[in-house]
Amino acid sequence: MKKKKLNIAIVGLGNIGSNLYKYLNKNKNILSKKNNCTPVVKYVSAKNKNKKRDIKISKNKWLPSFSDAPKNKDIDIIVELIGGAEGPAKNLVFNALKNKKHVVTANKALIAKYGDQLSRIAEKNKVNLEFEAAVCGGVPIIRSLKEGLVANKIHKVFGIFNGTSNYILTSMDKKKKSFKEVLDDAKILGYAESNPLSDLNGDDVAAKLKILSSLCFNSFLTNNIHVEGIKDIDKEDIENASKLGYKIKLLGFSELINNTIYQRVHPTLIKKSSYVASIDGVLNAVIVDGIPVGQSIIQGEGAGPSATTSALVSDISSILRGNIKFPFSISNKERKKLKFKDISDRFFSAYLRFEVLDQPGVLSNITKIFSKNYVSIKRLIQNPKKNKRYSSIIIITHKSKDKFLNKIIKIVNKKKFLIKKPKLIRIDDN
Amino acid sequence: MKKKKLNIAIVGLGNIGSNLYKYLNKNKNILSKKNNCTPVVKYVSAKNKNKKRDIKISKNKWLPSFSDAPKNKDIDIIVELIGGAEGPAKNLVFNALKNKKHVVTANKALIAKYGDQLSRIAEKNKVNLEFEAAVCGGVPIIRSLKEGLVANKIHKVFGIFNGTSNYILTSMDKKKKSFKEVLDDAKILGYAESNPLSDLNGDDVAAKLKILSSLCFNSFLTNNIHVEGIKDIDKEDIENASKLGYKIKLLGFSELINNTIYQRVHPTLIKKSSYVASIDGVLNAVIVDGIPVGQSIIQGEGAGPSATTSALVSDISSILRGNIKFPFSISNKERKKLKFKDISDRFFSAYLRFEVLDQPGVLSNITKIFSKNYVSIKRLIQNPKKNKRYSSIIIITHKSKDKFLNKIIKIVNKKKFLIKKPKLIRIDDN
Repeated sequence: MKKKKLNIAIVGLGNIGSNLYKYLNKNKNILSKKNNCTPVVKYVSAKNKNKKRDIKISKNKWLPSFSDAPKNKDIDIIVELIGGAEGPAKNLVFNALKNKKHVVTANKALIAKYGDQLSRIAEKNKVNLEFEAAVCGGVPIIRSLKEGLVANKIHKVFGIFNGTSNYILTSMDKKKKSFKEVLDDAKILGYAESNPLSDLNGDDVAAKLKILSSLCFNSFLTNNIHVEGIKDIDKEDIENASKLGYKIKLLGFSELINNTIYQRVHPTLIKKSSYVASIDGVLNAVIVDGIPVGQSIIQGEGAGPSATTSALVSDISSILRGNIKFPFSISNKERKKLKFKDISDRFFSAYLRFEVLDQPGVLSNITKIFSKNYVSIKRLIQNPKKNKRYSSIIIITHKSKDKFLNKIIKIVNKKKFLIKKPKLIRIDDN
Repeated sequence: MKKKKLNIAIVGLGNIGSNLYKYLNKNKNILSKKNNCTPVVKYVSAKNKNKKRDIKISKNKWLPSFSDAPKNKDIDIIVELIGGAEGPAKNLVFNALKNKKHVVTANKALIAKYGDQLSRIAEKNKVNLEFEAAVCGGVPIIRSLKEGLVANKIHKVFGIFNGTSNYILTSMDKKKKSFKEVLDDAKILGYAESNPLSDLNGDDVAAKLKILSSLCFNSFLTNNIHVEGIKDIDKEDIENASKLGYKIKLLGFSELINNTIYQRVHPTLIKKSSYVASIDGVLNAVIVDGIPVGQSIIQGEGAGPSATTSALVSDISSILRGNIKFPFSISNKERKKLKFKDISDRFFSAYLRFEVLDQPGVLSNITKIFSKNYVSIKRLIQNPKKNKRYSSIIIITHKSKDKFLNKIIKIVNKKKFLIKKPKLIRIDDN
């Protein structure tokens, strides 16, 4: 028998939890009508009960402790908004599913790390484990992969999955400012957290990409993923890219090639005229290549309380409608153990930048290293710096094996004529 | 009890029906796994049984007549691919729902016209009426509105909903060809049907927009919609637009303003730097503005057997999973009778073009008509045609009431100095 109402506990009342609380109370009626079942926010829990919030919560809604939620018979759905792959969030979600509670979470780190184990418990106990909010907030990509695009055999998913780093790269480009200046601005504007490490080092994108790979390719989660962030990109790189007709974006790619999955996150030179290059600021975009649909693109706000609430409520609504589904779209016993490979043997064209002392023989020394490592040069630009005794050498390569590109960086890095760590940024010419 | 398999009848075996037949047979296994229920293509029906098709269908699969499908106890889902708002398609879908069969259809004309009546029957009989394939083929917009974006109060939906007209406008622009030349090319390439009337006169977009309005605003379908197609756009308009920094696109808009809905379909001048301007060729894009999500964009292939199959299968999968939902996202008794208004009192800036005899007094005559009708001119360009005795006058207006813009066209159209029907194309500056 389908229930007429489902009781919800929201655990974690930061910006997102508070926003969700307000939304659910305000829209209870319309959600009931759309889903034929009423969502009732029965309980809340937060680390700091007395923190100032712009919502009023009656005393009887507070759980004595969040860890009481899984065993509370009056709770049907637990919304986990604590965050972090370990500790309280992990305990809560594992215990909730074990106790046959539906779980809705925005916790990408947790799902990327423990999603396989969690989905097994959810499937066994016939409850939902939903995580639309964990991947690109307001972009309804998880639901689209599970429903709207369910017919498709997907062979590639890629895009811009992190608003903070996209905001920084966009601002560096448009305002001609340095990484540090822009990061400071972003913190003031609320586009970067006070500790934005996982946004900048690529880990946030990597977690989302792992989840998307599993959904797209019906595979298990894996840590075989190449991850680079944007913290080494400087103004010169962005200017050089621009002169060559490119923008620099932090992209995540997951591709299925001959039954092998390649996952990578790195800054990428992408043609200015391409769709991805047009995604500026804090927006996210996910591009899916599948058969029979061709290419589908979903774009929207990637983060923030509003966009995240939209995602959380779509998950809650799905549960209200009794739309019980496998967390990763397919039963765990049907998920495949696909081969994952690192990208060292894949071919990329690349942008390399060397800051070198302006002395004879340097250029021939460098080009010799390229030819010895089977990398052929498509374009070379040497910019002498006025009044300084060094030059900037920018090289665009033809498609070459990734391991050789990296080897060149390693070799040149040891040379005495080098005055700064060399750069390697892959190019996407597709 | 959830059934272990559902039997499907495909009625209509043109390109799309044949493609779906092939897909379902080939992917039965994976669809069963994803949906916990097997789709079995039990019957087919087509007007011409002996037509050459690239699929083999055993004799026992053919229904004696498509009209047998609704009463056949061996059928759970009827996929209607006949097309047209009246006649056999209408009879089939009404009878199917009355006989408690689930219906999946790609028929936008039928849903735009009879969707309200049909959804009442579906709701009463607790069966699905699904029409993802009716609106922008491979763009999973219907499912996204019903699920991924379900949390949102939507106030605007717009975009490019017709691949044929977008292909024509794009080619006129890029190849500097006339409307007729490009249309002939499009027919040869299969991007335009032999009778592309409804693609070119805006009716196809209008049908899709009506359906989207109902879903976005929880309203009933309505015919109060302003519709213009692209058949009067010529090369000069596209060139003029380009010089002014715009592209011309056929756009559909539906907006909810102060509890009133305004629906319109017309060629539109849109800034080259805007997202919509970047959608070229046969692609479709739907843009949704909602609260809390902000702006979401979904883009993909709008038509063709592959993209349509993707949409049909997402609908079939939803039924296989037992995900019974209201066809228009909300119960009929909860849908609102919102006020619809025509656009005559709304404000638009516009591009107007007059081809006039090159004689004294014409310009002052025209500008006087503008000022008498409360339309102020932002920019005026007069291009005398060499060796001919006429001029082209292009005017960009400030925001003005639509009815006055139209009145100007009407008045100028009667003037003896005019040598060609005047043009009015609205501008989207948002």
